[in-house]
Amino acid sequence: MSLMLQEIRQQPEALQRTIEEERQHAQQLRRSLPQNPPLVVLAARGTSDNAAQFGRYLIEITTGCPVSLAAPSVFTVYRSSLRLRGAIAVAISQSGESTDTNFVLERAAEAGAVTIGITNEPESTLARLAQHVLLVRAGREESIAATKTYTGQLAALYLLCYALGGAVSLDGVRRLPELAAAALELEDTVRELSARYTFMTRAVVIGRGLNYANAYEFALKLMETCSVVAERFSSADFLHGPIAMVDPLLPTFVFAPGGPTKPGLLDVLRRLAEINQQTLIITDQGSGVSSPLLLELSKKISHDDVQGDLWTPVPYIIPAQLFAACLAEHKQLNPDRPRMLSKVTQTL
Amino acid sequence: MSLMLQEIRQQPEALQRTIEEERQHAQQLRRSLPQNPPLVVLAARGTSDNAAQFGRYLIEITTGCPVSLAAPSVFTVYRSSLRLRGAIAVAISQSGESTDTNFVLERAAEAGAVTIGITNEPESTLARLAQHVLLVRAGREESIAATKTYTGQLAALYLLCYALGGAVSLDGVRRLPELAAAALELEDTVRELSARYTFMTRAVVIGRGLNYANAYEFALKLMETCSVVAERFSSADFLHGPIAMVDPLLPTFVFAPGGPTKPGLLDVLRRLAEINQQTLIITDQGSGVSSPLLLELSKKISHDDVQGDLWTPVPYIIPAQLFAACLAEHKQLNPDRPRMLSKVTQTL
Repeated sequence: MSLMLQEIRQQPEALQRTIEEERQHAQQLRRSLPQNPPLVVLAARGTSDNAAQFGRYLIEITTGCPVSLAAPSVFTVYRSSLRLRGAIAVAISQSGESTDTNFVLERAAEAGAVTIGITNEPESTLARLAQHVLLVRAGREESIAATKTYTGQLAALYLLCYALGGAVSLDGVRRLPELAAAALELEDTVRELSARYTFMTRAVVIGRGLNYANAYEFALKLMETCSVVAERFSSADFLHGPIAMVDPLLPTFVFAPGGPTKPGLLDVLRRLAEINQQTLIITDQGSGVSSPLLLELSKKISHDDVQGDLWTPVPYIIPAQLFAACLAEHKQLNPDRPRMLSKVTQTL
Repeated sequence: MSLMLQEIRQQPEALQRTIEEERQHAQQLRRSLPQNPPLVVLAARGTSDNAAQFGRYLIEITTGCPVSLAAPSVFTVYRSSLRLRGAIAVAISQSGESTDTNFVLERAAEAGAVTIGITNEPESTLARLAQHVLLVRAGREESIAATKTYTGQLAALYLLCYALGGAVSLDGVRRLPELAAAALELEDTVRELSARYTFMTRAVVIGRGLNYANAYEFALKLMETCSVVAERFSSADFLHGPIAMVDPLLPTFVFAPGGPTKPGLLDVLRRLAEINQQTLIITDQGSGVSSPLLLELSKKISHDDVQGDLWTPVPYIIPAQLFAACLAEHKQLNPDRPRMLSKVTQTL
């Protein structure tokens, strides 16, 4: 069995550890972080950047503070400095050794920002650099394809939002391991369903709002572990151009949880159905969607009210991670050692 | 001849018109806009969102003001309001009728932001909504594939940066039409070179910094007009995962102008050469890059010093636009009427 699949299965306990051990820390931060900062800047690369994309939505929706996803080259290549006095700068890195995100954090500190690091490595450069640290306690990640550190970063971002005074309950955060465990029950279904995609070379992944990051992360897993050229879009951006390229031979994957993004996603699903798309839908049970290509999560995970998708990103990425791991098996590829990659990528 | 190709050729005069007629306006704005705002928020969709991506780098690099690319669903789907007092919010839309970007601008105004619209339509909803307007004067765009309004939006963003007190000279802006005309001289070369891609169904486009937006825009043109599944990455993000999917049959396209991004791009080109990539490079003459797949722009467009790529995005997108228009011809597709698209897309 691949390390990737083993690590996917470890997620409930990894989440449990992160949440139990960092919860108090989040409560302390809630007392010490500046209230109502003018801006939160998030800096990350790769899978961590997808977690940052989630953090962007979560922070804006639950705290009302605007967020900027840092463009590291502004600092590293163009050597610019930004006016960040009073801002909160957050670097997210599994290893804590991403040279460019660490560089952004140092420049942000010089400019007067409060700095926070989110990392899986307590002894890393990032953990030393940042004024405050939220540790992901996923345990060592052996597969190059990141899975348990991604959901661990999402959990840390919920705790960060709580620390920022956002409308995120700690009781909700504590339910994440149980939601992850429920999602893992889909493994057999996913293994069977993924076989039909063995010869897929192109794909489109669609998500929206809090699950937009999951579209990026699923696409990245398909690229890294299955050599599939996988595009990722929000359902709105998809309609502004890329829909023109779809045909019956281009499979699409849609995250469609209950909650406020559902109506827009159902519109896209209707348009895809018109052109006879091969669309695999990750949705909640009883969603009213009928398709032979369905991965259904418990209805309890989302609710059809405002912010009803608040707790969906962790459980919804899990069937997608399972899909990539199983598809790599069907393709006879080793997901733990993708071509051209190493575990720590250093770029400037 | 396609409308798209005709409109690509109109770019020098369209840019000339926009710059001559809006220059004074930018000078007035420079006196009236608040100095040192805490944040600039850019809202857009589709091609205009790619222009916003360029604006993000240009504003941060030349003014030091942090920029947030708005996530419209935060406002439209989640109904959140952000703390934007004192910020400058800019909506960019060819038609001025993008429902979601207009919605973001209205909410930003309510939150206390100064609002600016960049649009090709002086009578549009956006032009009425915004406190200040920078008009793109590209003339009516008939092709669904946007070309001259994209470079027009880039020109307007240079003027906006000047208005924000940024290190952008109006003399530089006035040279853009001449740079665009020089780039158009590549049309015959592009037509010939693009024939070999007639059966391409997948592609990767790479750009960095100020040309990162061009990677998005080239990929979008390939998706819309040629039904190619085209991925787009910064050279740094590409190394954090997606490089694992490349093989000799996956063509890559790289924007490699002179200036500070060049060393990093040359690294990526070396790694691609190791795996026998079919890489088409858009670069400056005398770049030292040797490849049978080269589109060379005048050395005068960029300079190998800091910010030496400041004026490259407009001329560098032009061979890419020509490539998409010619490839659509080779594929016997009509680039002016992509499947499933209309000129004005309204999403919420």
